[in-house]
Parts: sequence; structure tokens; C-alpha cells
Amino acid sequence: MVKTKVTEMLGIKYPIFCGNMMNISYPSFAAACSDTGALGIMASVMFRTPDDLREALIELKSLTDKPVAVNLNLFPMLKPIKQIDHVKVMLDEGIKIIETSGHQAPDKYIPLFKDHGVTWIHKCAGVRYAKKAASLGADIVEVVGWENGGATGRYDIGTLVLTPATIDGLNIPVVAGGGISDGRGVAAVLALGAEAALIGTRLLATKECPIHENLKKAILKASIYDTTIIMRSLNATHRVWNNQAAQKVLELENSKTDQMEIFNAAAGAKSKIMYEEGNLDVGVVSVGQGVGLIHDIPTVKDLIEGIMQETNEIIQKLSNM
Amino acid sequence: MVKTKVTEMLGIKYPIFCGNMMNISYPSFAAACSDTGALGIMASVMFRTPDDLREALIELKSLTDKPVAVNLNLFPMLKPIKQIDHVKVMLDEGIKIIETSGHQAPDKYIPLFKDHGVTWIHKCAGVRYAKKAASLGADIVEVVGWENGGATGRYDIGTLVLTPATIDGLNIPVVAGGGISDGRGVAAVLALGAEAALIGTRLLATKECPIHENLKKAILKASIYDTTIIMRSLNATHRVWNNQAAQKVLELENSKTDQMEIFNAAAGAKSKIMYEEGNLDVGVVSVGQGVGLIHDIPTVKDLIEGIMQETNEIIQKLSNM
Repeated sequence: MVKTKVTEMLGIKYPIFCGNMMNISYPSFAAACSDTGALGIMASVMFRTPDDLREALIELKSLTDKPVAVNLNLFPMLKPIKQIDHVKVMLDEGIKIIETSGHQAPDKYIPLFKDHGVTWIHKCAGVRYAKKAASLGADIVEVVGWENGGATGRYDIGTLVLTPATIDGLNIPVVAGGGISDGRGVAAVLALGAEAALIGTRLLATKECPIHENLKKAILKASIYDTTIIMRSLNATHRVWNNQAAQKVLELENSKTDQMEIFNAAAGAKSKIMYEEGNLDVGVVSVGQGVGLIHDIPTVKDLIEGIMQETNEIIQKLSNM
Repeated sequence: MVKTKVTEMLGIKYPIFCGNMMNISYPSFAAACSDTGALGIMASVMFRTPDDLREALIELKSLTDKPVAVNLNLFPMLKPIKQIDHVKVMLDEGIKIIETSGHQAPDKYIPLFKDHGVTWIHKCAGVRYAKKAASLGADIVEVVGWENGGATGRYDIGTLVLTPATIDGLNIPVVAGGGISDGRGVAAVLALGAEAALIGTRLLATKECPIHENLKKAILKASIYDTTIIMRSLNATHRVWNNQAAQKVLELENSKTDQMEIFNAAAGAKSKIMYEEGNLDVGVVSVGQGVGLIHDIPTVKDLIEGIMQETNEIIQKLSNM
């Protein structure tokens, strides 16, 4: 057992957040994550209507009785949804942990969160955004560094530096991610002062992860060098697996193509087809540098328990050094 | 006390290497570092003749009776020196710890190192170089990640990922650097499995560091965002303080200027003038992202002891979590 401020606040067993992933973090996967003792985080952005979201939340609640969070994606979207309606459904369904993600903290929803006793977690990729969220009343912030799969922010700060820099600027608990695939990474960010570790990419290679086997096998083969940064030209830097689709996005960026064409090439809808059909060049996939540290496809439960066992062994070893 | 394979091998008190810095790591500074219980590393590249180097080594030995290393720089140089003569002087003066740095391990010197009972440490910025050095007989390798001040390698892998990836590929001890400014960073890389932490940038802001006060004050003011990567176009990526000189180098790179002009703009000779005279725009300075975590100018002894105290407190805290 490793108890931290965050495990205590959320009532979770392990100081691990299972990163919210679009078109992956469905109710079943988020529930599987929470059932391990970590915090599962369901994505809401795939549910286009309040009714669809409500159905998903009802399913989520039926699948786990452990604490579980729901993500509200505040990044610009190709096809925006009416976020306030999503928030209302979450509150109506009694969701008690909401993770927002994006550069801007969600000013207008905060009073609603507070009125409903929601623990509000904001995820971002920079100290200034974290400070802003804390000043607006966030209970916890997550920061992700340069190694991260998905949004990396515009300043390219490694997790080893971003984590303590963020902690120094805040007086609320910080959860750190970007490059964590095993107990070594968890122990490292706890040593940096994080109150939990955020793990994303590592979860792609689990039995329950709802992506095609072809992609899971490709993840196993990938090295630490097999990611790239796309969409820097649009000020929306994302680290992704360096496949043909990523190369296509980079080509479009280099040729100063119309922004919409670039966004379309990187669209989640294409990734979804890839996840479902297993054609590995159709879409982009958010993958962090820690992909090179993945060597098997366990169940989520075995993964999280193994990571925590390794974390504990490392702490034991450090204290005997 | 924290004992690791590396502290045992080298007979040093603390698992900290004080990074070798050109035009800074003179005998007096390297000796001051070793006297703290960490490993000081003297640079040899500033000494252009065997006689000058011999004089420096004699001075070094007179200043400390603690283990101390000497660096042999194998990166391409504007004005190459005859390295074999430097090696012979080091061996002749009884130097027992030699750090080589560069992409290529120094094949031809290895038998000399072995014959003279030298502990050979190779410093590099990638797993493949580390593996090569280990296969050639290196006793210890140092790897530095994306956050590092100075050479960062061509693959941009964060320290949090590069460290475990390197350890997994080797069966010799690994020392990790890149972004470490305090006990949090030291504890983190020990948790990742490193046998010591390499600290460079943090040492710039110490009383003994032979650089101008203006630069020390600028270092104190710098944030984690105040570095940039130069010389990528020459396949010689370096992270430096983002001053006018760095911007000038980037401009030259963007305008596809002749390589020699770029190298000259980034030359150590210009940095040396800056260190001596305090004009902060004359030259480039290798500075890592951890610069944003520096808030005072202690003695080297107070710095290293403070870092180790913090490291020990963190380990204690982790084991009580």
C-alpha cells in the first residue's frame, strides 16, 4: 500500500490514474481500471448527445462500485458538443470525480462542480495552466511532460522537470504523467513529489483495452524512438505513434496545407476505424515515449498490481541503500 | 548515506556526479566538487598541449585527495587536439577515473585504460551508444535525456524514459542526468534504477563556479522555459540558455548558413569570454531545463549536502507512505 493525499481524497487503493483516452476509455474499460484499485477515467467526448452520455454513465456505474472519474474534454473539437449539457448529465447521474482537460480551465462549470460536491481534477501540460486551475478551485491537477502520449503542451518540458516545477507553484496535490510505463516511473514521480502517477500508453497493451490486436502487437514492438510530435504548426502539439498517418499529418503541416485538412488527417474518427479494424496506417494514435518499455499484454488488474508491487520493491530498495 | 554500485566502485560518499563543463570544470572546481563527497570531473579539452594538461592534473591532485575523474571529449572539435597524447598524460599522472563523452566510444584507448586500472565511464545521449560502450568494456555509462544542458542526442528522449530504457539494455551500472537540480531529481533517477545522478546546470549557481556573477544571477532568474535546442541542423543538438547568442545560432541554421559559421557562433571560445567578462549575449551556455528549479547560490559543499539530505528525506517519506 502506498497512501498519498490523492489516494485519501479519492478513496482509491493505488496512487495511479488510468489516463482518459478517446475512443478507448468507454465505460467498460474505465470500470476495469477502477476495479484494480487505480482511478479509471471514462471519456465523455465520444458521446455526442446527453442521452448517449447518460446511458454510458449508467453503464459505468453498473460495472464498478469503486471511485471512477469522467473526463470532460475542453480542447477545440472538429464537431463541438454542448459541454454544459454533458456537465449537467454527469451531475445528474451523481458523478463525483470530474477530470477536465485542455488549456483553459472551465470557469463556468466550477460553481456547478462545487455545488454538487464534485472533486474537480484539471489535466494540463504546463505550470501556468495548472496554477490557473488551482486558483479557480481545482482540487487536484494533473500535468504531463514532453514524453507524454497525446497533448504535450507548447513548451516541451520533460516530466522530470515539469513535475517539481508545477508542485513548487501550487498548494494542491499534483498528479504527474508522461513516460510512465512501470513501477520505476511511478516511484520516480512519487519521489518528485507527485501524489499519484498518470499512466496512459501502457494501458493500450492490456487484454481489456478495446483496440484491435494488430495495434496491441505493434505497441509491443515499438521502441522509445517510435513516436513523433504532430500539429505543432497548429499550436496543438500531440505525441503520437510514428506511423504513416502521422507522417501524412507532418507532410500536410510542412506544405502549409489548410488547417482543416490537417485536423481531418489527425481526426479521432480515423483513429476509431483503426482501433476497430486494425489497419495500422489509417489514423493517428496518441502514444508516449514510454511505449518502448512495454513488453507484454496483461490484464489491467495484473498490470496495475504488478506496477504497484514494483513500486513498493523500489521504495524498499531505496530505503535500504 | 546512500550506497549504490557506483559509490562502491568509485569510493565516493554520494551517488552524484558533478557534470564536466567546458571552460568551467578546471582543477579547482572539479576538486571542490570531489571534496563534497560527490564525483568531481575535470574537463581536459581546454588544455591544448600535453604540458598544459599535465600542469592541470598536478594541480587537481594537489587540491583533493578524494576520487576525481577527468573527461576526455570525443565530440568533433573546431580545433582538434591530439587525444592520444592527452590520454597518455592522464595515465602517466595516475588518473584512475576517466570519463569519455561523445557518440563514438574510444576503441583505441580502451586497452590503455584497462592496462592502467582505469575505471572507464562513457557519457552519451542514447541507448545504442551506451550499449556500444558497454560492449567495449565501459565500467559505467552515463546517459542524459532531453532536459539536459549541452548535448541531448538526436532522439529527444526524456530522462524519465531514457534512464530505464538504457538500464534494460545493459548489464553495467547506469548514471542518469538531464533535468536534475535537487534531491527530488536525484531520488527520482535512483528510483528509475540509476546508480547515481549526474548534475550539471545546478552547479553553475554555486559560489565556487568560475563564471561571472552576471551569469549566475541570470541563471537564478531563468525559468524552465528559458532554454532552447541549437545545432539540430548539424546533427549536434545542444540545449542552451535561450540568450541572444543562441538566437543568432538558430537564425544562422534557419538561413542555411555555412556550417563553420554556425559552429563559430556556438564556439566555446565565445562562451569563455562570457564566463570571464559577464556580457550575457556573447556566447552560448549549455543549460538544462532544470535551470528553472534553481533559487540560490550556495557553496558546492552546501549544495551537494543539501541535495543528499533532501534525497534521504524523500526516501524516508516514500517508505512511510
